[in-house]
Amino acid sequence: MQLLKHLNQFAASGVCTHSSGNHAGALALAAKERGVKCFVVMPSNSSQVKVDAVKSYGAEITFCEPNAPARATTLQNVQARTGATFIPPYDAVNTILGQGTAFLELVNQAPEPLAAVITPVGGGGLLAGTALAADGTGVRVFGAEPAGADDCAQGLKEGKRRENVDANTIADGLRTPVGALNFPIIQQKVERVIVVSDEEIIEAMRLLWERLKLVVEPSSATAFAAARSPAFQELGVKGPIGIILSGGNIDLSKPLPWHVA
Amino acid sequence: MQLLKHLNQFAASGVCTHSSGNHAGALALAAKERGVKCFVVMPSNSSQVKVDAVKSYGAEITFCEPNAPARATTLQNVQARTGATFIPPYDAVNTILGQGTAFLELVNQAPEPLAAVITPVGGGGLLAGTALAADGTGVRVFGAEPAGADDCAQGLKEGKRRENVDANTIADGLRTPVGALNFPIIQQKVERVIVVSDEEIIEAMRLLWERLKLVVEPSSATAFAAARSPAFQELGVKGPIGIILSGGNIDLSKPLPWHVA
Repeated sequence: MQLLKHLNQFAASGVCTHSSGNHAGALALAAKERGVKCFVVMPSNSSQVKVDAVKSYGAEITFCEPNAPARATTLQNVQARTGATFIPPYDAVNTILGQGTAFLELVNQAPEPLAAVITPVGGGGLLAGTALAADGTGVRVFGAEPAGADDCAQGLKEGKRRENVDANTIADGLRTPVGALNFPIIQQKVERVIVVSDEEIIEAMRLLWERLKLVVEPSSATAFAAARSPAFQELGVKGPIGIILSGGNIDLSKPLPWHVA
Repeated sequence: MQLLKHLNQFAASGVCTHSSGNHAGALALAAKERGVKCFVVMPSNSSQVKVDAVKSYGAEITFCEPNAPARATTLQNVQARTGATFIPPYDAVNTILGQGTAFLELVNQAPEPLAAVITPVGGGGLLAGTALAADGTGVRVFGAEPAGADDCAQGLKEGKRRENVDANTIADGLRTPVGALNFPIIQQKVERVIVVSDEEIIEAMRLLWERLKLVVEPSSATAFAAARSPAFQELGVKGPIGIILSGGNIDLSKPLPWHVA
């Protein structure tokens, strides 16, 4: 909602971002609803279903080599050509605040007060935003990170943000290192980041599909896997636990994770 | 809800049914919530995931050969042994009225008045119940049936219920012939039953998974496929169309329909 409100000021020249996932889709949809042009830089190896989704929301896609320098250069070129304003996927105040509104919606819709909330952490926008939104409410805030990209949990232990991560996890939305703005907020406001294995993520994902009938991607299932983990269960949280499922951006043309394993 | 209300009177000896699908799961769950014993007769070739779901709701399962006479005999034996009351999956007044409450929930939750509603039709409990619930509301009622089990649509054309169907469709919940009680209600109260192909069902199912992020089974997707069909589009219904998605009872251990095709 925060994002939508701010989009109006960009009506003239449009907005742009780099993302191969949910941020690209969300920005494209939000821009379309406000009649704002949207330009997205996506890696050339993005899955067709994600490309199709972004296109269907009317955004213009520029492909780049799948690495950070190519992404930055391509984005600069797009900005120079279009004058569009960059809306970062996680490492920016308004993005963090906007992502925190998911927690407000959750609290408003939950039938009883929450004891805790768990969100996945990749770049850390959703987790930092949730922590800020929950600040002072008494709701305990936890992050969930895959073992194959646990830079945030490691950084918290070491008291210093890890700027890079050698990611190896099925949770493709969480392969990013946690952002510079996001990390200190998480340090101060998040009780703990719980690390789970890809096996736990796949099991949690399948359970969400089978019982809640929800198509969620591995990154979303990471938060549910954390809730089911011994590390979290040992904390003995009493009362309802909110879990923010961040997306269902999955390529259904491919075999499901449990078909492959 | 109708079902739950009536379950209380069966507390002593329990309830029973025959079903390999959603009715078995729904009855088992409803019985569990009321502390009523539940006995389910399932064909021996039922998928493990359906068996597990019914078991997890605490029902006792008796397996039978996968044919109608074996099913009837086994159910009689279960009833003789337990004294449980038979709750038919579709061909009974209370079942029909109970299934009609889905329409009431839909109307209550819809943000604006519906112009039409579409439900799948197998045994016809959901469609007949919906038609009765919608009677007098001005909402137009349609059924959706797979071409490989279109006994209801054919019966409507012929003015006489077909008692058997040589079913060949992916929509496993709709392979039953329409019930004797259900058919005349559908004849009087349903505007039309729209027939769709398995290809249209699979396409609709995939779209629901990809865009609504809902795990629905082919039988559910049949109603959405009907809404997308030329036959329905030609009717020029103006306004919101309600679609009742009747279940997500799918064996996720197997490849998805579009992986197979």
